[in-house]
Amino acid sequence: MSKVRYGIIGIGNMGSSHAGAIYRGEIAGAVLTAVCDEIEAKREWAQGQWEGVAVFGSTDEMLASGLVDAVIVANPHYGHPAEAIKAFAAGVHVLVEKPAGVYAKQVREMNDAAAQSGKVFGIMYNQRMNPLYRKLRELVQSGELGEIRRTNWIITNWYRSQAYYDSGSWRATWAGEGGGVLINQCPHQLDLWQWTIGMMPTRIRAFCQFGKHRNIEVENDVTAYAEYGNGATAVFITSTSDAPGTNRLEVTGDRGKIVIEDGKMTFWRLRQSETEFNASNQILFGTPEVWKVEIPDQGPSPEHAGIMRNFTDAILNGTELVAPGEEGLLGLTISNAIHLSTWTDGWVELPLDEQLHYEELTKRIESSTFRKSEPAEAALPVDLSRTF
Amino acid sequence: MSKVRYGIIGIGNMGSSHAGAIYRGEIAGAVLTAVCDEIEAKREWAQGQWEGVAVFGSTDEMLASGLVDAVIVANPHYGHPAEAIKAFAAGVHVLVEKPAGVYAKQVREMNDAAAQSGKVFGIMYNQRMNPLYRKLRELVQSGELGEIRRTNWIITNWYRSQAYYDSGSWRATWAGEGGGVLINQCPHQLDLWQWTIGMMPTRIRAFCQFGKHRNIEVENDVTAYAEYGNGATAVFITSTSDAPGTNRLEVTGDRGKIVIEDGKMTFWRLRQSETEFNASNQILFGTPEVWKVEIPDQGPSPEHAGIMRNFTDAILNGTELVAPGEEGLLGLTISNAIHLSTWTDGWVELPLDEQLHYEELTKRIESSTFRKSEPAEAALPVDLSRTF
Repeated sequence: MSKVRYGIIGIGNMGSSHAGAIYRGEIAGAVLTAVCDEIEAKREWAQGQWEGVAVFGSTDEMLASGLVDAVIVANPHYGHPAEAIKAFAAGVHVLVEKPAGVYAKQVREMNDAAAQSGKVFGIMYNQRMNPLYRKLRELVQSGELGEIRRTNWIITNWYRSQAYYDSGSWRATWAGEGGGVLINQCPHQLDLWQWTIGMMPTRIRAFCQFGKHRNIEVENDVTAYAEYGNGATAVFITSTSDAPGTNRLEVTGDRGKIVIEDGKMTFWRLRQSETEFNASNQILFGTPEVWKVEIPDQGPSPEHAGIMRNFTDAILNGTELVAPGEEGLLGLTISNAIHLSTWTDGWVELPLDEQLHYEELTKRIESSTFRKSEPAEAALPVDLSRTF
Repeated sequence: MSKVRYGIIGIGNMGSSHAGAIYRGEIAGAVLTAVCDEIEAKREWAQGQWEGVAVFGSTDEMLASGLVDAVIVANPHYGHPAEAIKAFAAGVHVLVEKPAGVYAKQVREMNDAAAQSGKVFGIMYNQRMNPLYRKLRELVQSGELGEIRRTNWIITNWYRSQAYYDSGSWRATWAGEGGGVLINQCPHQLDLWQWTIGMMPTRIRAFCQFGKHRNIEVENDVTAYAEYGNGATAVFITSTSDAPGTNRLEVTGDRGKIVIEDGKMTFWRLRQSETEFNASNQILFGTPEVWKVEIPDQGPSPEHAGIMRNFTDAILNGTELVAPGEEGLLGLTISNAIHLSTWTDGWVELPLDEQLHYEELTKRIESSTFRKSEPAEAALPVDLSRTF
């Protein structure tokens, strides 16, 4: 195979953006051969967009055509696992948009299908290409920061007005999206929260507020507290109604503290680990010697294009994936646990009780204002360049 | 009265520092006439420190001497209310060190005694003199920040090594101090947390860790989540083992966001309130216009001297107190609620069930490693200039 032939499942905002990047030749080794969408208006629009690219009305037709080696799954969230499973069954590689799905139970089925197929499986965690977070992960993995003790992420700059929520009847509904800021805006950060430090929580206590300052049924204000097996703790705070919001990640380890804010990383590095200092210090109010280190600018992030290039390289050359598809389950599990903790008003232990979460979600879906008979995302794509 | 004659109850680290400031004439209108301490070694030391100042072995003797118009209560935490109540009964004004006491129940008794006496009652909340926090309070009270929506305070720069904890057998014990970072290091911030925004939480869910990276029995790592009557939420995080720690307070309102960090205040001011913008905005990804405002440096803080001057002025001239003694109950109630939420592993509603908190604390006191037969704070004063 000299070129990977791509098909796009769902040409809404994200799908059409990815289709365009491949069509324009921005992804070496990739060629756009087909797209599919259930909505006729979008198919008509697509005919005029990408010359020579086949347009299908269903995933099944596209997969049966033999035109694609790989698909990007970019239909509405709930449908990601089902479409991916179809593609794996057809022997096609899959790059799934975030979130991997809406509930862990369905994503586990997708992961099983991927494993059985032996095909390359990636997830569009484009923030894993961000050099700042890659650098943080490297500083943790290399031991520079020492054993992790605490993380605080305030990621409240996901401002969405009522006009945004009113732009689609599926938006911010249990039946249409399966959640709010946790499912739509925050999946990247929920992934990075565990990926950068290489640890999943052992239990979570979280506090979601639903329809905070907005007329919506899902959560748009979240405070989550997490504990880890090594005794570390963490807080994750997100919102869509704070203005202006904050994006500040602080990670404290035995050898210092790293803060990422305003696109800059600062490392307060202890000359001696806190554990060592504490064991030997005899001065009543003594504190460890600390050096403020400005980590050099790591350059721009290749974002989605970076993920698509890495995924293409994995198919063509066996390159290791930066964002293996199976790992979509990790951030989603945290997301599900945050919902479940709020719904049960108690601790949620991990591994997650995925069945209990699914049952609780189902209750909300049944009372949701959104009815699936209405078209999901019928509008033509809009410019999302500032939003993902 | 042209001069307020001060007596100091307890000449440990803080008491001797305040005594020195008054003795040196740093507090206009105040004169040091007496000190008292139960520990003989301290009394001997005091004889050589402050010429012409009477030294007593008990509060009762000092109050009976007729030498003092006002006392500063600076004995160990547990004893603050009892000493203050004695002073009120003797018709003497009282400035109590922080914390007001260890449990709300005893502080309520002190507040009642103060009210009955009609004497001036202040608390050494010297951080209320800090111009940064005064300015924040003013910006909230004047409406510049709008209705409060969220606060996040990461105040983890209370580093204390094992050597500090080992310096007194009473330190960081339930029987000796009644708590850890919440009672000893953080009372100022717990006060400012409610004072700057003018709101007490309606309920708290908190997570204390006891003896984190230290051989102590009390909490030295705390994450607390709070909710308020107007729907606002807040997080408060503190620790004595993080190195280096952080001191960053973020307050978000309907009209923007204020951050205090590194001794600087920045106000991200919305041109139009978020509520107004949201009601009228029609742009899908529209966000309110925001101006970054650097609030001018408010100058140095007069700290403890400022509180003592204000308290003296209140006695001599009826000046309004910046830190009325009764308000010591507020921060302590939050502190008690944080403990109680951890102990009961559940929500704590406010007003606090003070009896339940007292019963739970008593259980810990009974199993404490500290035995009161050992001398509390028998050592001579040390330099605390970097610590309060």
